[in-house]
Amino acid sequence: MSREVTIVENVLRVNDELAGMIRRELATRRIFTVNLIGAPGCGKTALLERTLKELAGQLRLAVMVGDLATARDAQRMAAFCDQVVQINTGKGCHLEANHVHQALSRIDLGRVDILFIENVGNLICPVAFDLGQDVKVGMFSVTEGDDKPAKHPYIVAESAAMILNKTDLLPYVPFRKEIFMEDVRRLNSKAPLFELSVTKGDGCDSWLNWLKQGRAAKAQARA
Amino acid sequence: MSREVTIVENVLRVNDELAGMIRRELATRRIFTVNLIGAPGCGKTALLERTLKELAGQLRLAVMVGDLATARDAQRMAAFCDQVVQINTGKGCHLEANHVHQALSRIDLGRVDILFIENVGNLICPVAFDLGQDVKVGMFSVTEGDDKPAKHPYIVAESAAMILNKTDLLPYVPFRKEIFMEDVRRLNSKAPLFELSVTKGDGCDSWLNWLKQGRAAKAQARA
Repeated sequence: MSREVTIVENVLRVNDELAGMIRRELATRRIFTVNLIGAPGCGKTALLERTLKELAGQLRLAVMVGDLATARDAQRMAAFCDQVVQINTGKGCHLEANHVHQALSRIDLGRVDILFIENVGNLICPVAFDLGQDVKVGMFSVTEGDDKPAKHPYIVAESAAMILNKTDLLPYVPFRKEIFMEDVRRLNSKAPLFELSVTKGDGCDSWLNWLKQGRAAKAQARA
Repeated sequence: MSREVTIVENVLRVNDELAGMIRRELATRRIFTVNLIGAPGCGKTALLERTLKELAGQLRLAVMVGDLATARDAQRMAAFCDQVVQINTGKGCHLEANHVHQALSRIDLGRVDILFIENVGNLICPVAFDLGQDVKVGMFSVTEGDDKPAKHPYIVAESAAMILNKTDLLPYVPFRKEIFMEDVRRLNSKAPLFELSVTKGDGCDSWLNWLKQGRAAKAQARA
């Protein structure tokens, strides 16, 4: 048992060292990097499609997207961005720094202001692995129910911002907003929560402005 | 790297041995055991609440439910069943046979016909761990999108039955049924797929009948 624990610690240590290298490289290039984490179907890819479309011409964007199988997400986003890399993890339940390191070699970093890393659809395992990002963003949707922050506290606690998607479906699903918010604030009193509907476009401006501010701060930090 | 792989294999081997012991024990007692696997918020707990309610008086039921944190699911189901055990996994992303083994000691197996194991909300990691169940049931919901079977092929391939929940929300979400079915059938040509709305109750009868048949077959197999 202790041997197993040692191995897991080694895996995390090696991961974190590589993530640190990635973070330094991205800092040098002033690339604001977002690690987007949420359950399958919460709307991560749809959010990035809209984000790529809305920010086109204002900022230079790149995306890495992790999935067990298929290149469907990359294909969807390639319509809005010429720097999209699909990472297939096989049976792997999360992205690791090694995936990001390899995928970076396929991106022209000289023309990137914001790098999005769409993690594998999973609210648990991705939280533990540093990818060298500036921020983790935890994403929920109202159709998942109001109990998800309490049941998945680690992603809430580690998020620099959170998203609550599919607000257009609120009339049709049981969702007690006060329960959701109470658990979110108990676990993370500071991070902004963006309530939005990716498919309808409602509420997306605050998210886009937050991204622009993040990129501006990153650019200034190195100026 | 090879050392890490060896450790993982050992963990799975120990798990599988214990799962085999659990399977033999449950077979002796003719308990039909269902390992329910799905993404966070697909409706696993709501499905079990309805199932417990509908089968009350016909079959004797017990439930184990896994979550990182909180006892909310067990509290919900306790309203419909006097044998419910909550398992908190901490940061663990799936149930293992060891969890089930411990939880079994808290259930009076002499009065159980069907045991439900609601796994941690996660479409990936739970698939790899045998819990001694008779069947794995993979659960999806229409709000997650039509691409989830293709992106999560292992749970589809290993399911003895599948559920597509939240059909009442079909008018409000983008979901191409033909894409979903095509991927399901490519990966698993045999398992029945139950399309239903847990909250409205539509389509639940086929699921309940399938459970009754499973229990009947289990009872006969040992008669």
